[in-house]
Amino acid sequence: MKKVNVGLIGFGTIGSGVVKVLQERKSLLKDLTGVDIELKYVCDKDLSSDRGVRVGRRLLITDVDKILKDPDIDIVVELIGGIHPAKEIILSALKKGKDVVTANKALLAREGDIIFDSAGKFKREVRFEASVGGGIPIIKALREGLVSNKISEIYGIINGTCNYILSRMSDERCDYKVALKAAQKMGVAEADPKLDVSGADSAHKLILLAGLSFGVFAKPEQVYCEGILDIEPRDIAYAKEMGYAIKLLAITKRSRGEIELRVHPTLVPDWHLLADVKGVYNAIYVKGDLVGETLFYGEGAGKFPTASAVVSDIVDLAGCHARGSGHPVMDSCFPPSGTSRRNDIVLKIKKIGDIKTKYYIRFSALDKPGVLAKISGILGKNDISIANVTQKEERVAGAAPVVVMTHEATESKMRNALRLIDRLPAIKRKSVAIRIESLLGGPAK
Amino acid sequence: MKKVNVGLIGFGTIGSGVVKVLQERKSLLKDLTGVDIELKYVCDKDLSSDRGVRVGRRLLITDVDKILKDPDIDIVVELIGGIHPAKEIILSALKKGKDVVTANKALLAREGDIIFDSAGKFKREVRFEASVGGGIPIIKALREGLVSNKISEIYGIINGTCNYILSRMSDERCDYKVALKAAQKMGVAEADPKLDVSGADSAHKLILLAGLSFGVFAKPEQVYCEGILDIEPRDIAYAKEMGYAIKLLAITKRSRGEIELRVHPTLVPDWHLLADVKGVYNAIYVKGDLVGETLFYGEGAGKFPTASAVVSDIVDLAGCHARGSGHPVMDSCFPPSGTSRRNDIVLKIKKIGDIKTKYYIRFSALDKPGVLAKISGILGKNDISIANVTQKEERVAGAAPVVVMTHEATESKMRNALRLIDRLPAIKRKSVAIRIESLLGGPAK
Repeated sequence: MKKVNVGLIGFGTIGSGVVKVLQERKSLLKDLTGVDIELKYVCDKDLSSDRGVRVGRRLLITDVDKILKDPDIDIVVELIGGIHPAKEIILSALKKGKDVVTANKALLAREGDIIFDSAGKFKREVRFEASVGGGIPIIKALREGLVSNKISEIYGIINGTCNYILSRMSDERCDYKVALKAAQKMGVAEADPKLDVSGADSAHKLILLAGLSFGVFAKPEQVYCEGILDIEPRDIAYAKEMGYAIKLLAITKRSRGEIELRVHPTLVPDWHLLADVKGVYNAIYVKGDLVGETLFYGEGAGKFPTASAVVSDIVDLAGCHARGSGHPVMDSCFPPSGTSRRNDIVLKIKKIGDIKTKYYIRFSALDKPGVLAKISGILGKNDISIANVTQKEERVAGAAPVVVMTHEATESKMRNALRLIDRLPAIKRKSVAIRIESLLGGPAK
Repeated sequence: MKKVNVGLIGFGTIGSGVVKVLQERKSLLKDLTGVDIELKYVCDKDLSSDRGVRVGRRLLITDVDKILKDPDIDIVVELIGGIHPAKEIILSALKKGKDVVTANKALLAREGDIIFDSAGKFKREVRFEASVGGGIPIIKALREGLVSNKISEIYGIINGTCNYILSRMSDERCDYKVALKAAQKMGVAEADPKLDVSGADSAHKLILLAGLSFGVFAKPEQVYCEGILDIEPRDIAYAKEMGYAIKLLAITKRSRGEIELRVHPTLVPDWHLLADVKGVYNAIYVKGDLVGETLFYGEGAGKFPTASAVVSDIVDLAGCHARGSGHPVMDSCFPPSGTSRRNDIVLKIKKIGDIKTKYYIRFSALDKPGVLAKISGILGKNDISIANVTQKEERVAGAAPVVVMTHEATESKMRNALRLIDRLPAIKRKSVAIRIESLLGGPAK
């Protein structure tokens, strides 16, 4: 039987999950694949902490070079996270002819062009199933399962921390800070939650999803990104009254040679499956021209869901190694920087100002005659057409919340209108604007 | 560039979709895979009908032997459906060293043991992504994406016709016959809908899902099967009042060395994603010990969703051919008849009488004192504990519907109780019993 040697770097939460699975499921995986996957090294700076998994002493090392320089190592699993030295380790592994498995979305989103270029150059593979959606096999679905589709839209709930906080704010009508504290207590938010709640983590993952779907590998600064810090329980409640849930969505769409890349809180109709994705769960809604609407749902993080994804990558690569061949689809996964491998069309990234969506807007207006006329006048002058207006009975610091739902409007015009409206003497606080996605399915064909 | 030749047999709805995709996406697939997939033959008895796709005359043939005997053909795509001659064609193709792609769930469910044995013998592959869930890449997810998981439960809405009929009955409170007519008019039910509405089609697909998950390849007669013909709008309405939707679920679970295999109408809590799967859509809920709860959703049938799945199989196999290797995971996919390839445990199929579920029961009882006491007495004697009883105000032919929700009860005892209750003089019609699945997630670990 063919044997494939694995060197794992980063013996933290996910690393220990992967070690446990590779050890305990060794014979199961051998039965299923006909390949003997041998974990040869487990490398970490800290070898003394208890990870709840038994590892033979001879496997444990602190020197990463031992893995990189060992010609018997076929697959390097990078689970240390962060940019450095993860990047250098991956580039060195590829150069030495080893395939790489990683869960490092931040690195791939920032330096993916260099990494995938290098993989192509050395004819090696970089697999990253665990980088998006935890255990959900969404990367495999896009790469292989939907290979013949032209993808038109992806809407993802791909940050469990944000979804947990928003779910909790919705269920308990508590504010962001209370929900964040609860999330931290539950271990679903970091002590410093910035990367998650700012939307940056979702943006990193979105870059990978869009790259697979459209062959365009964007940089983090090209993704428009708004986090969940400004969401108030009031907005969640008003949205609910009108039949919507507020979710942090990562959105990419393709139309007329351009792609949209944006992460922001979004009103989602409550009849849509995405509205029902609660707590730390993730879901990725994908629309392809052949397959139509699909949705992939599961735990977006956590030790074992993530280990499940990492091991599926190891198994795929192990099979390729044992047989001396790569997987047919997109071996190096991404094309040289910027160009679209799906080269039927040249795509560029749409400016956020040009994007059109419907909007939920909440104004804090003094309850005086004529205010609504002024607001709607400014909206009208900016080509923003109103679908619905509700003045709430509630009074907040002397002002009445006025909720306006608009038809589709251009982002730049909306920003201009809000700037002018917020200058009106009758407007007491900065207005709140949240985009709406109708998600009105219909055939993709 | 490596070239792989495909011979397609069965130029019907799905066949013409596959031909269109292979022709129109030829260069896209070449770019993505580095393999030139050449459609060499399209075989059908009828070559005169217009399928809305242009095919070169030299490709069109009526003699299937031309494909089977051509040594240049690498992959045979069987899309004629039915048992004969599909079975003979597939066996002959394998014997001649060709890989096979099929969407034929009825054939695989009935004769899969012979077909997969033969594939193993000749070291060839039989791929069948399109046989379950249309374009949803559920076979790939179970085979590869979740490869390291021990699957514990699968609940599938895997027949679009039944889901459409039940959705329509629920939305419009119409009866089965009216909903069926509408489905036939919409083209989502056959003129003879028996295979779908009896649950037999779901049972065929369930055999494949259970086979991949548990390595146990059951026969159709081993799957307990109840269709949707007896569902009344009244039961859908009562269930809705209590917070449930009625769905035709295909269920397989594993516990203590046994697996359950059953297809029947089921009460699903309305907060669960499965309750929100409407119309012709399919969804497969999979619970694995590492990944936890996952759900895969999409169109379960139709020309292009199914073609998307068929083409993904062709692409996978084409890559293997071009590189002279098979995919690592379960090349012949199923083990020799009956034995579990996931051989950590020997599994047997649980008898339906031993299965435990909660129940919704509707009795048609004369509105007389003492009737409820008799019913509950019989239930009690059969160890069936009542969770809730509601006597409806409605009167149907002089009888009052009495709805009982039970705690978990053994199927054989429930049947015994119902037999005794239906003999009571106060019971005017055969009682209706529908199983309830609580789907109370929680961690799989």
